[in-house]
Amino acid sequence: MKLTKQNLSEHLDQVYDTIIVGGGAGGLSAGLYLQRYLLSSLIIDKGKARSLWMQQLHNYLGLPPDTPGRNLLKQGKDHYLSLGGDFLGGYVEEIVDEGETFAVRVKVGRQDSIYPVLRSKYLIAASGIIDYLPSLEKMQNVYEYAGYNLHVCLICDGYEMVDQKVGVFGSSEAGLEVAFSLGWFTPYITLFTNELFEVSSQLRNKLKEHGYPLVEQPIKQFLGQNHQMTGVELADGSVIELEAGLISMGSQYHASYLEGINLERQGGNIVTDKMARTSHPRIFAIGDLKVGLNQIVIAAADGASAATQIWREIRRATGAKRWMENLKTSV
Amino acid sequence: MKLTKQNLSEHLDQVYDTIIVGGGAGGLSAGLYLQRYLLSSLIIDKGKARSLWMQQLHNYLGLPPDTPGRNLLKQGKDHYLSLGGDFLGGYVEEIVDEGETFAVRVKVGRQDSIYPVLRSKYLIAASGIIDYLPSLEKMQNVYEYAGYNLHVCLICDGYEMVDQKVGVFGSSEAGLEVAFSLGWFTPYITLFTNELFEVSSQLRNKLKEHGYPLVEQPIKQFLGQNHQMTGVELADGSVIELEAGLISMGSQYHASYLEGINLERQGGNIVTDKMARTSHPRIFAIGDLKVGLNQIVIAAADGASAATQIWREIRRATGAKRWMENLKTSV
Repeated sequence: MKLTKQNLSEHLDQVYDTIIVGGGAGGLSAGLYLQRYLLSSLIIDKGKARSLWMQQLHNYLGLPPDTPGRNLLKQGKDHYLSLGGDFLGGYVEEIVDEGETFAVRVKVGRQDSIYPVLRSKYLIAASGIIDYLPSLEKMQNVYEYAGYNLHVCLICDGYEMVDQKVGVFGSSEAGLEVAFSLGWFTPYITLFTNELFEVSSQLRNKLKEHGYPLVEQPIKQFLGQNHQMTGVELADGSVIELEAGLISMGSQYHASYLEGINLERQGGNIVTDKMARTSHPRIFAIGDLKVGLNQIVIAAADGASAATQIWREIRRATGAKRWMENLKTSV
Repeated sequence: MKLTKQNLSEHLDQVYDTIIVGGGAGGLSAGLYLQRYLLSSLIIDKGKARSLWMQQLHNYLGLPPDTPGRNLLKQGKDHYLSLGGDFLGGYVEEIVDEGETFAVRVKVGRQDSIYPVLRSKYLIAASGIIDYLPSLEKMQNVYEYAGYNLHVCLICDGYEMVDQKVGVFGSSEAGLEVAFSLGWFTPYITLFTNELFEVSSQLRNKLKEHGYPLVEQPIKQFLGQNHQMTGVELADGSVIELEAGLISMGSQYHASYLEGINLERQGGNIVTDKMARTSHPRIFAIGDLKVGLNQIVIAAADGASAATQIWREIRRATGAKRWMENLKTSV
C-alpha cells in the first residue's frame, strides 16, 4: 500500500524482509519478484527516476518503441502495489547496519518534514543516477529539450542520431571522448566545452583528424521549439545549427546514504556479483549504481536476480512448510 | 525482412555481423540492440520459444501481469523487423568456425527442405531450453494443462500456487527435491514418480517429516477442464485431487549445433562472462542456455549485453566516421 505521513506510524515496528531504495525500473522489478516470493518489501522513492525523463523507450523488449519511460514506471508501480508491496515517497538520508537489520532514516515531505526510521533484513540500493546537464542561465531552456533530441545516453539514442548534425556537450575532456563512439552513427559532430575546461593538444589533433569542430565559447542558449532543439546560440550571438545533442557531463550517483558503509567500488560504481550482491552480504545494488550498462532492461533483470537471491537465503533459513493433517484435507 | 525459401538466395553471399540462433526473448532483445547499433543481424528461429507457452507473464516489468508470452514475442518480432532485421524460420543444424566467420547450416521447410549455409562474424546462441513433460499415452492430455495451472517454473509461478494442493511430477529423485522449495509457498504437496524411478529411503524419510505423500503408481491421465487441471487419475482408477501441478523433469537444451565447438560448461549450461560471452571470443550465449536464472527479463538483458559487446568490438575495429566537408555543410 502507499504509505503516507498519516499511516506511516503503523509500519515503524515492522521489520521488512527488504527495503528497496529507489522506485525506478530496477527497484520496481525487484519489488515485483519479492512480493511474488511472499516476502515483505518497501520501496522508498524520491521520485524522478532517470527513465521518467525518457520520452521514448526504443529498446525495451515487449513495449512499442514509442513508449514513454513514465508509462513503464506507472505500470510497474501499479503492478507492485497490486501485489501488496509498500511504497513510500521520501528521501533516504542514512542507513545504519544494526547487525541483523538495517535502520533506514527517511525524510518524508518537503514541508513539515518528518524523519521516520524503517527497518529491514536486506537492503537493495536501486537509487540510480541522474545526468548532469549544461548549466545555463535559464535552466528551463535545457529542460525543454533534454530527453527529447538532447540525449544523455549514446547506447539508447545513437540510432536516433544517424547522419545528423550533433552537438556533444562535455564538462571535461574525458566527457568529449564520447564523440569517437558517436562517430559510429554520424560524422557530423561538433564539440562544445561551454568554457568549462581546457582541451589538450592531443585531443585537438584527434578532433582535427576526424574533422570535428571544437567550440570553446560559452553557450548562451539552446534554440528550437516544441521540444526539438535546432541549434546553439553562443555568447557572441553566433548560431550553430544542430539536429540533435548528446550531453556527456557525467552523472550524480544517488547513494550518499551508503557513505557510512564500506562497499567495494570501481570508479563511482558499486561492484556486485552475478546475483547483484555487493561486498556487504545483506546489501544488493542494481541498475545504474552498479558496474555495468545503464539500461532499463538490465536494471529490471538485476532486480529479479537480487530478489531471487534474498528469497533463497530466507527460504533456506526458514525451511519448507509441513503438511499438517486437518488443515486442508480436500479441495 | 522475413527470409523465405524464395528470397533466401540473395542472402547467401552476405556476411552478417551477427547471426542469432533463437527468436525468443533473448534473441529478439539482442536483435533490437544490434539493429539499433547499425549492425546487420539475422535471427534464425525454429519456433516454439519456451515463453510462447506461458499464458501469463506475471513478473515482467512494464507489461500487465496477464500478458501472454506470445504477445511479448510478437511485439518484439514486429519491432525487430521494423528496424530492418532479417528473420528466418528454420532449424540450425550445424555451425562451423571458419576463423573470421561462422558458417551456419540451416534446415528450412519441413517438406521439400532446403539446407542453406549463412555466414556471420559473431554468433549469439539464444536457442534456449524446453521442459520435459510427463510422457502419457495421450500427450494432448498434458498439453491441455501445461502452461496453465500445470507449471514448469517455480520462480515464475510459486506465487500462483500459494496454499494450493500441488502435485510435483519428477523423472528422477533430484527433480522431486523442488518440493522443498515449493514448500515455501504451500504445504499441501503430493509427489509423483509415475513409476519412472526408485526413491531412496533418505528422501522417503524427508517427505514423511514434511507430511508430503509420495505416489508411485503410474499416472493414467490428468483430470480437469478448460485448461484447469483438477487432479490425477492413477493406473488403478483412483483419483488424487489437485489445484495445480509443478513439472520438474529437467529440460532439453536446444544447442546440438554447438557440439562441434568446445565451450566451457557448468552442468548442462554454458559459462559466460558479464557481457554474455562464452569461452569462444566470437560466440555469446544468452537466456536459458547459459548459467543463471531462467527468466524472460534476464534473457532480454543478456541480449542487450551481448549486442553491446559485439558493437564495441566492431566499432573499435572500424573507428569513427570522419566529417568530410561538402558532404553535409548545413542542415
